[in-house]
Amino acid sequence: MSHAPGNTPPDFDALLAASRQPLPASTKTFVQGSRPDLRVPQREVLLTNGERVSLYDCSGPYTDPAHALNLQQGLPALRAGWIAEREDSECYAGRPIQAVDDGNLRDGERWAALQAQAAGLQRMPRRARSGANVTQMHYARRGIVTPEMEFVALREMGRREWMAEYLGDAAREQRLRGFGMGAQIPREITPEWVRQEVARGRAVIPANINHPELEPMAIGRNFRVKVNANIGNSALTSGIAEEVEKLVWATRWGADTVMDLSTGRHIHTTRDWIVRNSPVPIGTVPIYQALEKVGGVAEDLSWAVFRDTLIEQAEQGVDYFTIHAGVRLPFVPMTAQRRTGIVSRGGAILAQWCIAHHQENFLYTHFEEICEIMKAYDVSFSLGDGLRPGSTADANDEAQFAELRTLGELTQVAWQHDVQVMIEGPGHVPLHLVQANMDEQLRHCAEAPFYTLGPLVIDCAAGYDHIASAIGAAQIAWAGTAMLCYVTPKEHLGLPNREDVKQGLIAYKIAAHAADIAKGFPGARARDDAISKARFEFRWQDQFNLALDPETACAFHDETLPKDSAKVAHFCSMCGPKFCSMKLSQEIKRGSPQSSASPTPPPEGASLGLGRPGAEWAAQGMAEKSAEFKAAGAKLYIPLQVELP
Amino acid sequence: MSHAPGNTPPDFDALLAASRQPLPASTKTFVQGSRPDLRVPQREVLLTNGERVSLYDCSGPYTDPAHALNLQQGLPALRAGWIAEREDSECYAGRPIQAVDDGNLRDGERWAALQAQAAGLQRMPRRARSGANVTQMHYARRGIVTPEMEFVALREMGRREWMAEYLGDAAREQRLRGFGMGAQIPREITPEWVRQEVARGRAVIPANINHPELEPMAIGRNFRVKVNANIGNSALTSGIAEEVEKLVWATRWGADTVMDLSTGRHIHTTRDWIVRNSPVPIGTVPIYQALEKVGGVAEDLSWAVFRDTLIEQAEQGVDYFTIHAGVRLPFVPMTAQRRTGIVSRGGAILAQWCIAHHQENFLYTHFEEICEIMKAYDVSFSLGDGLRPGSTADANDEAQFAELRTLGELTQVAWQHDVQVMIEGPGHVPLHLVQANMDEQLRHCAEAPFYTLGPLVIDCAAGYDHIASAIGAAQIAWAGTAMLCYVTPKEHLGLPNREDVKQGLIAYKIAAHAADIAKGFPGARARDDAISKARFEFRWQDQFNLALDPETACAFHDETLPKDSAKVAHFCSMCGPKFCSMKLSQEIKRGSPQSSASPTPPPEGASLGLGRPGAEWAAQGMAEKSAEFKAAGAKLYIPLQVELP
Repeated sequence: MSHAPGNTPPDFDALLAASRQPLPASTKTFVQGSRPDLRVPQREVLLTNGERVSLYDCSGPYTDPAHALNLQQGLPALRAGWIAEREDSECYAGRPIQAVDDGNLRDGERWAALQAQAAGLQRMPRRARSGANVTQMHYARRGIVTPEMEFVALREMGRREWMAEYLGDAAREQRLRGFGMGAQIPREITPEWVRQEVARGRAVIPANINHPELEPMAIGRNFRVKVNANIGNSALTSGIAEEVEKLVWATRWGADTVMDLSTGRHIHTTRDWIVRNSPVPIGTVPIYQALEKVGGVAEDLSWAVFRDTLIEQAEQGVDYFTIHAGVRLPFVPMTAQRRTGIVSRGGAILAQWCIAHHQENFLYTHFEEICEIMKAYDVSFSLGDGLRPGSTADANDEAQFAELRTLGELTQVAWQHDVQVMIEGPGHVPLHLVQANMDEQLRHCAEAPFYTLGPLVIDCAAGYDHIASAIGAAQIAWAGTAMLCYVTPKEHLGLPNREDVKQGLIAYKIAAHAADIAKGFPGARARDDAISKARFEFRWQDQFNLALDPETACAFHDETLPKDSAKVAHFCSMCGPKFCSMKLSQEIKRGSPQSSASPTPPPEGASLGLGRPGAEWAAQGMAEKSAEFKAAGAKLYIPLQVELP
Repeated sequence: MSHAPGNTPPDFDALLAASRQPLPASTKTFVQGSRPDLRVPQREVLLTNGERVSLYDCSGPYTDPAHALNLQQGLPALRAGWIAEREDSECYAGRPIQAVDDGNLRDGERWAALQAQAAGLQRMPRRARSGANVTQMHYARRGIVTPEMEFVALREMGRREWMAEYLGDAAREQRLRGFGMGAQIPREITPEWVRQEVARGRAVIPANINHPELEPMAIGRNFRVKVNANIGNSALTSGIAEEVEKLVWATRWGADTVMDLSTGRHIHTTRDWIVRNSPVPIGTVPIYQALEKVGGVAEDLSWAVFRDTLIEQAEQGVDYFTIHAGVRLPFVPMTAQRRTGIVSRGGAILAQWCIAHHQENFLYTHFEEICEIMKAYDVSFSLGDGLRPGSTADANDEAQFAELRTLGELTQVAWQHDVQVMIEGPGHVPLHLVQANMDEQLRHCAEAPFYTLGPLVIDCAAGYDHIASAIGAAQIAWAGTAMLCYVTPKEHLGLPNREDVKQGLIAYKIAAHAADIAKGFPGARARDDAISKARFEFRWQDQFNLALDPETACAFHDETLPKDSAKVAHFCSMCGPKFCSMKLSQEIKRGSPQSSASPTPPPEGASLGLGRPGAEWAAQGMAEKSAEFKAAGAKLYIPLQVELP
């Protein structure tokens, strides 16, 4: 699948064939907002019983057969009007693109061909007018509810009509009510409430004005937990087409944002392809590209090169930047006694620079200048945890928490500029130390959204680190983390391929959903209740189609019971047709065929021919009840919906 | 791989070829106990730096090339002498085997052939002499430390010499110290302490006197968290050879016990093959076989048939029985309003029986008679949770907890007979309700070991339920659950094949290990620290070999960097050879080649040419330090092991 750039553009149509199909039984529907151009996509699953279940949908136009895709031109700019009508930004010539922007590419002819292929993706950039600030936080603090905020509110709420069937039982809801650990999630998420959350910095809407193609989403502890997928080439592997395909594939499996961590060749042009074709916010680590520009020698980095890179990427439309401004010179020695030193690539680059120059990190000393750039495009900070632990042995140590406190200080600086901020977190943390990470983050970072990598709760699961980290991720998300950066099965071993991307995403959608339910996010339980009902009613197809990965669920079922008739069979392969616990239990509720022949209707609140437990279980009545049961056909259950006179 | 029984025995040698190989770089070693015939197996991993790491080993003689395997005769009876010398049991003719014992097999000739193949596996059974009680709990309460208890103590402790390297740093250990949530784990596990735990019922050593082949292990909250794997054929799939292969395969990947849940044909003979060849305790659900004996009609079950089945299986050597004695008649109506009714197969069978007869569950009414059987063979109870929730919607409801309280009552009854008990738990439970399950279990069951299935924290992960449940499993194991019943990716969809068995086991070894570390089980962290050190030192082979699944870890690495030289390369595929954060950090500790040329040795406690953070970071010293750095070769790091005069 690797594509070497040449004179012919990659065959994206063939590459994206799998990702263009809607998921089984699913159609793209839209929730209409307050203006005609505000339509929030949903995935609607049609069940075999006629019910329609609406689900949050990250996949953008790709899963909409009505959309005519043209990857050479990019997705429609759905936010273009919203941005323009605010009249606080302007188009300008922008920074000229140079060969050095494409990493270590040195073949001029080849680079020209690469540029020609991407010509349809290059836009005149837009930035804030002089003196203006175009961040969502700035609007929010001035009391403005933007279309982006309304979009987010409608998206978080979704279509709820179908949930009544599943969330209607008050006693059940009381028993299952979530425990938010300090989250303050309202029953209804309104645009005004989104504004308040953004204004106080508790939520981020990453939305660069140069990425008008994105469908706005929010990251915050009082919203659904989000998942980020990392893609990107490295010096060793992967081409542009592969990365675009991974982007689309990732959104198909639920990536709420995607980080392009490319470090190899074509780094600028790859990003053109990715940003223009992404319906989700794109994050980057600009120091990676800056390092390429100075030939990979960390000591040669400078504020000038870095600043140039920030502007380059902001003009392309990157929505959030990981900035390792907390890797301060005094903290580097704290890592010397660690088991695994510094494992963040960005952290290591900056530590090397700091030591080489014996100077404070230039990202720290130039932080306010970075803020000025961020607010001209509305790029959000993702303050990087360059000193995160790379092993459970190093978890929660002095270096990690010293950096975290610095990120808290920097959050306050950014907020003075109305620049949106999230805080990155670890890493490798044993299960019992996970909560302390959230506690420290809340203590020092004033509820700025926490965005963690896992954490992995053990170190010896190489090949299965998506699982080892999903355990920590569920835990920390329940505790308040707003977005989870996925970990794939290839972590520590190699670069993820498309199957790894999917495996990582499914594991993290599980963790995020588990946390949503635990926190009591309104309606989060409904999908689970719907699949449980389908399971109980032997609606196999619905069970598959409501699962996070319908294709795998169906394929696994087919391995044991391949026949189509088994999809509607009232048994499964575990018990076989002769005895099935689900079938038996189901009859309690549905009523057996003999139901109308039953001589005694059940007492109120019970569906069996049994009284409530307690004194009435007198032995003398039992033989009579047994005889009654046999007279009714010796079938197990008496019906719930008995026809009373 | 399916094997239809006929006149030729299955070719087990070919079938077990993969499972007979030791894991990479591993050899079987033994910790010698106080008597010559007490040797506790360990898996010793030889690292490329000469270190030897010893790990807990469930795989029995299969991974020992010195062992001459003969599956037709079974494993060596290593406990035979221990049992005989207690002189409280005797051999006897035993219950005659009948065709009906092999389920619905009706072909007499075929059954005879089946029996002939298993002839070498049939033993004269042993039971307690009249008036005697042969349970480990009975010995423990009389102050006797059995060889089984000593075996367990040595096994839990393992060889610890190699851990000094990893657990020697007092500050680190203080920072990482576990939080046991009420567990009382001693620094050293002694045979006497094992005795105390068994005596008070807080630990179980499942060890039927008719299963002398097993290597004793303990299940209790103050021991390592254990993992059970379910195997077994059903009416639809799987033959004897397949099940034996799954057994061996499961122990290879860390199954501490195996449950044979067969419900199909050859049910008795399959168990002969499994028990005789199993180095781990075997559990069953006897009601499954009893149901086969009455043609699958639950109403036709009786105490007589059930009792006959208990004795049949106890004579074969089954080590623990799931007994659904808590599915009481009054509780059945409580399930009527559930989303998914009764999902436990055993629970559904007994509910059907109760309702059909309008009588109390015969397992409940005959419970003391069951205890009499259990103590004659030392079969442990696994009190079944027949009313466990089959969906998160039904979690922690009235039916579930009513049954749990009953299991607590029955625990006291069993303990009056000195019969060992564990308690089964759910199932499907949202993350925030997991703790309540442990709390209720501790409250009502007097710390009898909890043995849970997952729990799954969401319902919509079909195809990935091993992950959805590993999240809940890690959480509940940390809280005190002693053994985790694995869930495979096929849960809800089909019967697991061998790859599913492995996937389920790895996910659960991750959960169990995460809990051991969180609880602070002595030494549990050492393996992780060893793999982290290997990672930091670019000892790739050691990283693979210390992982839970060395083969997959190596294969994933090979996908990106297939060359052998990459196994010793000081970089990985993520950053490539030019820049590597691990390599950079590593030099902090190891010292760069320029180390001896460095003019200033580092201050005590730091390994860089930097002072401690604080006042001494005066700006005027920085230019000087930078010049010094450049004079030393412009290399990043100044050494830790500098030669002082």
